[in-house]
Amino acid sequence: MTTPQDSPPDFTPSPLDPADWPAFRAEAHRLLDACIDHLATARAHPWRPLGEADRAALALGDADAGLGTAALADELARKVLPFATGNIHPRFFGWVHGTGLASGLLSEIVAATMNSNCGGRDHGAVYVEREVIDWCRRCFGFPESASGLLVSGTSQATVVAFTAARTRALGKASRQDGIQGLPKLTAYAVKGVHNATVKALELLGLGASALRTIAAGADGRMDMARLAEAVAADRAAGRQPFCVVGTAGSVDLGLFDDLDALADFCAREQLWLHVDGAFGAWARLADAPWRDLARGIERADSLAFDFHKWMYVQYDCGAVLIRDEDIHRAAFAARPAYLAKQDQGIGGGEPWYCDYGTDLSRGFRALKVWSALRAYGRDALGRAITRNCELAARMGRLVEATPGLRLAQPVRLNVCCFSAAPEDWDGAAQDALNTGITHALQLAGEVVFSTTRIGGRTVIRAAITNHRTCAADVDCAIAAVVRRREAAIAAA
Amino acid sequence: MTTPQDSPPDFTPSPLDPADWPAFRAEAHRLLDACIDHLATARAHPWRPLGEADRAALALGDADAGLGTAALADELARKVLPFATGNIHPRFFGWVHGTGLASGLLSEIVAATMNSNCGGRDHGAVYVEREVIDWCRRCFGFPESASGLLVSGTSQATVVAFTAARTRALGKASRQDGIQGLPKLTAYAVKGVHNATVKALELLGLGASALRTIAAGADGRMDMARLAEAVAADRAAGRQPFCVVGTAGSVDLGLFDDLDALADFCAREQLWLHVDGAFGAWARLADAPWRDLARGIERADSLAFDFHKWMYVQYDCGAVLIRDEDIHRAAFAARPAYLAKQDQGIGGGEPWYCDYGTDLSRGFRALKVWSALRAYGRDALGRAITRNCELAARMGRLVEATPGLRLAQPVRLNVCCFSAAPEDWDGAAQDALNTGITHALQLAGEVVFSTTRIGGRTVIRAAITNHRTCAADVDCAIAAVVRRREAAIAAA
Repeated sequence: MTTPQDSPPDFTPSPLDPADWPAFRAEAHRLLDACIDHLATARAHPWRPLGEADRAALALGDADAGLGTAALADELARKVLPFATGNIHPRFFGWVHGTGLASGLLSEIVAATMNSNCGGRDHGAVYVEREVIDWCRRCFGFPESASGLLVSGTSQATVVAFTAARTRALGKASRQDGIQGLPKLTAYAVKGVHNATVKALELLGLGASALRTIAAGADGRMDMARLAEAVAADRAAGRQPFCVVGTAGSVDLGLFDDLDALADFCAREQLWLHVDGAFGAWARLADAPWRDLARGIERADSLAFDFHKWMYVQYDCGAVLIRDEDIHRAAFAARPAYLAKQDQGIGGGEPWYCDYGTDLSRGFRALKVWSALRAYGRDALGRAITRNCELAARMGRLVEATPGLRLAQPVRLNVCCFSAAPEDWDGAAQDALNTGITHALQLAGEVVFSTTRIGGRTVIRAAITNHRTCAADVDCAIAAVVRRREAAIAAA
Repeated sequence: MTTPQDSPPDFTPSPLDPADWPAFRAEAHRLLDACIDHLATARAHPWRPLGEADRAALALGDADAGLGTAALADELARKVLPFATGNIHPRFFGWVHGTGLASGLLSEIVAATMNSNCGGRDHGAVYVEREVIDWCRRCFGFPESASGLLVSGTSQATVVAFTAARTRALGKASRQDGIQGLPKLTAYAVKGVHNATVKALELLGLGASALRTIAAGADGRMDMARLAEAVAADRAAGRQPFCVVGTAGSVDLGLFDDLDALADFCAREQLWLHVDGAFGAWARLADAPWRDLARGIERADSLAFDFHKWMYVQYDCGAVLIRDEDIHRAAFAARPAYLAKQDQGIGGGEPWYCDYGTDLSRGFRALKVWSALRAYGRDALGRAITRNCELAARMGRLVEATPGLRLAQPVRLNVCCFSAAPEDWDGAAQDALNTGITHALQLAGEVVFSTTRIGGRTVIRAAITNHRTCAADVDCAIAAVVRRREAAIAAA
């Protein structure tokens, strides 16, 4: 046998690595410049729809031969970058879209270079994730003993939380034995709860029917008396209530349940309190009165929230906190032989995040959060959140002061829903006018509103989770609605 | 009311955007240079463990105040980038780690700038994802009518696939009603199946006990007679067999089931055939004989696979294909009012990928796959996969030719498992020697092997999914094992 010591080893570069590194460096810098140009001129980049030719230009076909990274860099700049959703634009208020941060551009360059797998092991990325989870625990007033996990978003965070809650309700053996012979579990949430709750119940085999939606009182919060009745009725019928979902910021209206009252109730009834705080949890960083909405969030058994909405961090990134680490691990921890813990080397370190959720391989999501906190800090992020609430309130006042516009709901957080339709029009015509206005504004690149249904009618909806939005944007947006309204009514 | 037309609008820049764009641009370019330096010298960057001070330097504390992006860029380069897992290094063979591609550095810069949410709507990122899924369909021989979804990895892909299979087995109403009153479902897979299968069954409420592991024959494939017996026995006992999991590349050994035989069996027995092709599915792109291992994969009802392992794409990125789109949608599709489809504007377009899985918000994973295919092409990626198999075979031959080393299993794909322990040592001492050698090599930054258990013994394991690995790396790695072995035996 010839050992490599006999001759100097011949380390052949990979054909998949750049053959000409200086050329690749130049391509990457040019592309970075194009991206920074794009970001610095976010105000000039509303949604840009794709025509037939734009779509055809993205075709992969069989992709049997490559074009090289120089051609790729050029294509990314010409064929991909211009066709953004527009959520980086200051007048994008549609759905609940985050904007992304300049810090995230820096962090993603580093994350793409390191290419860390954060499923476990002992390396830098895992320590960054620990720091982010520890910070979240402190931020939301969870005990040091709580566990957490970064995930793709609140949908996954809800799945993780409900799995832990199911494990507590049905016993640790249910992980092995399944739930098919066990009592029907039931969960409770305010009417208007986010669909992630329903999807998680479906996924876990509990079924959408496991969810009881409880009407809200006049204050928009879950009616506690009705909650108590529903739980009692299910128990009387032989079902097993296991979880109450508190909403911290409803997606349509930005409403909050009374989390303290829910925590008291759940303690009394021995139910798991899960809080859906997708964007609303971050009200905790805002000034009064908004921060008070999230009071009691620190008492949840589990909390799901996103960084990619109201913390402005790049997609995708959310997290779950679980008060009882033992139950969290009981629901997920598993190490087959090839992942056995080592006492030293790369295979060491604890915790391994694959023991806290579904994913065994995990990207380096933590770095964009860590970077946002390092670059801007909690206080500045909190001020931006406060500012978003102030701007939603401003929009609400403008709507009220503008003839022909009317609020569909009082503005409580960062969501403003209103109608531009004459009240004496029939319902379908009102719906069509509001929808038509949002379409026209989107297509013109002026403002992005979405729509939703309130009181059986389609209304215009703005959710301001956009750090770039300023007062003039709100004023322009409402003025644009007025112009479109007048044109549409004139044409009707 | 004052409308904004009365005076020029005052668009105030956000405090979270760079105040000085030229300065930010310079910071970003410096950081990009540091990252390209790191990538261009991957051979100089093995795993670098963190000391106490390195970990302390990552502390966030309360993070109340920010340091600015200049300080962040500096910290990312000094405190984060150096402490990589080392999987970009050509002699990292541990577990199954992908390496990342230069194309992915380009694509992640663009993705971070666009900050697209790929849950749905009508924008460029969604069209890129469609192209990637269409390409996958063609690549794996699925019909045009099949549906697909990019996810964080095979673990999530398995959850999506099993949810569709569960829906087919128990009926569409089970999504609404839950599974608690329904028959016990059972699934079948070869012994040694990846743990993602077990975790998915647990998550879906079917329990780990739903899985019957079927012994392999001498050829390493699931024993078809035993499979038939197990299915018949479950039916006789009143259970409902629903899914057979075919393994395309077992994690420990790189073994393949006979997918054609499984497809025939499933067709006969009306069972769902899911194929776990996490890395092994990509054998389809390799030369003979390896490509033949994946024969029959095109007949699966669902296929789960990763791009972040053997397609070298950056973490995290996997996908699922589902033959029957109707069942796929029946398991997941849902649109609450605020996500209602629009006939024009941003809220238009079909499909919306939130209807094909759990996540409502989704990052722009597709761009790194699209970019790899554009830059390098399928054929070059296939050649790299072939090369990895050839190198594993080379390692196997070297092991066989080296006194004191012995193969634990024949090398069939890209995985080589061997022992360096004297056969006359007692078992625990053999285990300790193999573990000790891998630790010593990791700590010295020479080679990263992981370990696994075969035949009740701990053995050294190399999985070559690394495009940078060349023949000299394999030779060096085995020579390093020999040196460590001699030193350890001398010290024993």
